[in-house]
Formats: sequence, C-alpha cells, structure tokens
Amino acid sequence: MNEIKLFSPATVANVACGFDVLGFCLDSVGDEMVIRKIDKKGIYITKIEGFDLPYEAELNVAGVSALAMYEAAKPDCGFEIEIYKNIKPGSGIGSSAASAVGSVFGMNELLGSPYTKTQLTEFAVKGEALASKCEHADNLAPALFGGFTLVKSMTPLEILEIPSPDDLFATIIHPQIEVKTSEARAILPKEVSLTNAITQWANFGSLIHALHTSDYSLIQKSLHDVIVEPFRSQLIPHYNDVKTAALKAGALGGGISGSGPSIFTLSKGIESAKKVADSMNDVYSKTGIAFDIHISKINTEGVKII
Amino acid sequence: MNEIKLFSPATVANVACGFDVLGFCLDSVGDEMVIRKIDKKGIYITKIEGFDLPYEAELNVAGVSALAMYEAAKPDCGFEIEIYKNIKPGSGIGSSAASAVGSVFGMNELLGSPYTKTQLTEFAVKGEALASKCEHADNLAPALFGGFTLVKSMTPLEILEIPSPDDLFATIIHPQIEVKTSEARAILPKEVSLTNAITQWANFGSLIHALHTSDYSLIQKSLHDVIVEPFRSQLIPHYNDVKTAALKAGALGGGISGSGPSIFTLSKGIESAKKVADSMNDVYSKTGIAFDIHISKINTEGVKII
Repeated sequence: MNEIKLFSPATVANVACGFDVLGFCLDSVGDEMVIRKIDKKGIYITKIEGFDLPYEAELNVAGVSALAMYEAAKPDCGFEIEIYKNIKPGSGIGSSAASAVGSVFGMNELLGSPYTKTQLTEFAVKGEALASKCEHADNLAPALFGGFTLVKSMTPLEILEIPSPDDLFATIIHPQIEVKTSEARAILPKEVSLTNAITQWANFGSLIHALHTSDYSLIQKSLHDVIVEPFRSQLIPHYNDVKTAALKAGALGGGISGSGPSIFTLSKGIESAKKVADSMNDVYSKTGIAFDIHISKINTEGVKII
Repeated sequence: MNEIKLFSPATVANVACGFDVLGFCLDSVGDEMVIRKIDKKGIYITKIEGFDLPYEAELNVAGVSALAMYEAAKPDCGFEIEIYKNIKPGSGIGSSAASAVGSVFGMNELLGSPYTKTQLTEFAVKGEALASKCEHADNLAPALFGGFTLVKSMTPLEILEIPSPDDLFATIIHPQIEVKTSEARAILPKEVSLTNAITQWANFGSLIHALHTSDYSLIQKSLHDVIVEPFRSQLIPHYNDVKTAALKAGALGGGISGSGPSIFTLSKGIESAKKVADSMNDVYSKTGIAFDIHISKINTEGVKII
C-alpha cells in the first residue's frame, strides 16, 4: 500500500464544564486527505483544495505535524500530502487539528503503524501549535481516538477515552464571523472564585459519570460552564438567544465550541437534534450574519481510511 | 419490628481533587446505635456511650436529624435513640454524619422505609448543620449510600453513586489534635487561579473515569489536590512527612480527610494498605502526638442493620 485516502473529522473542544480538557468527535463534517509514499525523501504538500493555505510543509499545519513524525521515524522514503479542506479555518470545530491529525495518521498507516494514537497526538501537537500558538490536544485527541476524550495532562501526554451513549447527537451552528483566538484568550479571567471552581468540577465529574452510565438526564444537568462561558459568550453575537432557543427546542445542553464562534449543543436522538437545528436557524436567519448548521452523530471511530 | 441495632460508618470527605463533592465510606470504624419505636410521641435520646454528648434531642446531631424526619413523617409513635459512639467528634472522618445518618436510617426502617436515601440525606443535613454550622452532605452521602458518592448539588440535593474497584483499601491516621473547622475554612483562598482550577477538574474527571474502569494506575495519577491541600495541610503537623512516607510505602495517593486532622490514603490491596499503615506509624510514633491508624476496605453498603 503506497497511497491512502482518509477522512479527518471536525471536533468540538472545551465541552462546557470540561473546558480545556474534554472534546468529542463529529461524523458529518471533516477534511479528506490523500497521503502517498514516494521514493524521494521529505514531506511535500502537492495539492490543497477548499481554502487558501501554504504549500511549504514548514508553514502548513499538516506539514509541520508530518515533519515531526518524519524526523522521529526517519523512514527510507518520503510522503506527498493532498488536502481537500472542508472545515473552514477559524470556525471553532478543529480545522487545524483535522489537518494535523490526517497527515500523521496516514503516514503511520503507510509505515505499518509503528506509533500509538497517543504518540501520533504528540506529533500532531506540533502542527496544532503552528495554528494556535500553543501546544494543546483538545481537538487532536477526539480526532484521533473518536468519541469523547479527556486530555488529563499534556506533560506527559495522557488521553482518556470516555464512553458515550449511542443516541447522542450534536447540532452545531457556525456563524461566519471571526473570533480571534488571542481575544478569546485575553477575555478569560486569571483567577476564579473557589465556589465556581467547585461547581465546575462537580459538574465535570457528573458529566463523566453520566457518559459512563448513558444517563441523558444527568448529561443535561451537568452540561454547564460557570467559568468560561460568561466571558467568551460575549464575543459571539446572539449567543444567548441561540442557546435559549436550542434548550427550548429540547437540547440537553451546549456551549461554545473551542474558542468559538461555533456553538454546539447535544441532544438525545436525531429528531431532537433536527429540532434544535431548526431553532438555531430561526434565530440566526434574522440576524443578517451568514451561518451554517451541522447535525452529527458522535463519531466513535475518529480519523479513518475511506 | 420495634427495635433495630445498626452500624453507622465513618466516612472520608473531600477526597483530594474531589474537594467538597466526593466522599467514600469506611468499613472498620463506625458508631453503633439502637433505634426503638415507642408509644409515646417524640424523639428521646436515652443512652450515649463513648463520648460526652448532649441528651436533649434539639442539641444532639442524631436528635436534630431525627426531629427533621419526625416532623415530616408525623408518625403515630415516638422513638428512643441509643448511641454507642466510637468515632471521636472532630476527628475528620464523619463523626457527626454517622450520628445524623444512624437515627434517620433506623427510624425509616422501623416505619417501613417510606423515604429514599436521598430524602434521608435531606433530613440528616439538618443534624450535620448543627455540628458543622453549614448544610453539607459530603459525609452523609457515603454513610447512607456506601461506596464513593459525588454530591453534585445541594439545591436540589443530587447524589451520584460512583462505582469503585473491589480491591481498594483506605489507610487513615488520626493524629489526636484539634483542627478547628472555622480555621480550616478561614485558611481557604476565596479565589484560585484558572490554571489550577483546570488541573483540578482534569484530575477529578480522570478520577471518576478511573473508578468506573477500576484503573488503579489512573487513580494514582488522579488523586491530586492542587487547590486545598497546600493550605489546609499547614494545619496538620507532619502532614508532608506522613504523605511522603505513605506514597513511598505504596499508597496510590491520599489527602486530608474532611477538614482534618485525619489523613487518608488509598491503596490497592490489603497488604499494601498495611505497609502504608506501618509507614505512617513510623513517622508519627516519633512525634510525641497521640494517634491511631485504621485500615478499611471501601464499604459499599453504608449504614446497615446488625
């Protein structure tokens, strides 16, 4: 096998009370990539469709993660990478993570899988850092492992796979505005009250328990973020209206996807997720801001060969 | 049935990263109580052995929780309560909770179990508040439900039963000094850094996952408290020496039990728990402070008829 085509999924990070640690993987949105083993040594990006991104491997997220793995593996070959990008950069659903994950996953497959998924995440972190100016794995982990993932620590990198109920669906609205990551970071408080911190870890522990026990009612009661949402939601126009409408339409809960501007909700069942999509559409179609809405089952597989 | 004798267990609250929300139940330490249904209406404490505590129901933790339930149930009878107290008040292993739980559990049994355990916890909260000057259920929940419990919220009261591995043992040292609850509260910071808060909920989510998956190694990696321990451990003499020795002897981790002065550790297997006990003994026997040490399996049953 010298060439594979793969689907590298979009992901949601910063899942409410799991800010900075919990993410999940989407099914219906993602990039496609072709990875090809070639005789000539090195990493070459040979095609990019969808968005205007740099071809120089050192300047491209997929290229940087590929180079990190290439330098570790020192294979007797090179790789060509083709990127068919569907996830808009800056949309808040793991666009850079999908690129970073795709190249290392594909190369690993073509080399006979010498690396574990956690090791692949370590390489992909280098690519992600090019895009987001810091090393984090919140989107990489769910893109590689699928399902819900908890990044327990970065040093050493420790990723936990959290089970989730079968009938859980995400509805995501992407308002086509820009939220600068630097601004989303700057708006965060350096200190939080101990009371709020306790509420947050009570909710987060409950959410992990609820995912283990497929307890939708408890997912609903746990999906609250008392720390970050009050600040970052100010950067997303009509955030409260969208969330209120989604909850009224039956969503279990939701929050800001990544650092925004996308807003995610979780629902029990596809019919509920569709009603939530309709409610989001009703709110945003009146705003004059362009947007798109995705409905997706939780993708338990992650990045895959197609 | 007009009389029952019961065992009301000691408990550990504030389990490391689960400060204020996670507790577990002990097997080897607890109070005994006799609850007797009588014709004469009212709540009467007729015997107290072990420690000097008030006989007036309104001034006694077991009496106050009993009265709370009695006023709700309005039964056509009264109750006598005998208390054989083994858990020293102020030791940090749920002495008042054991009293508060015993009376309502016993009365509920004698009335044909009209109340759920969560409802019993609500009554017991009133007794606990007499002792600790605030309404909390951190020790009550594990005493009533057994095992590990997560008090997700107080209003409404929501208690989650978290599974735990079969071979988990606690070793607890009780230095016979007084840590005033008011001092333990006053030493807590009002604000904490967002960075530490994130570390805490990452660890807490991991601990809940580890308990679900019986992953001892992950329990070990998750049992850290970066928020409260650095402050409260100052109130317990030789805290760091005890903890360091226990970890060296093989404990998975540990922390302050409740608001101290007891220190708890968790170990895989009784042999390991015994070695930890020896290591604690080595440290404390040199200090001149009186102490006792308990080893206990996690008690998954909670309060029970004997």
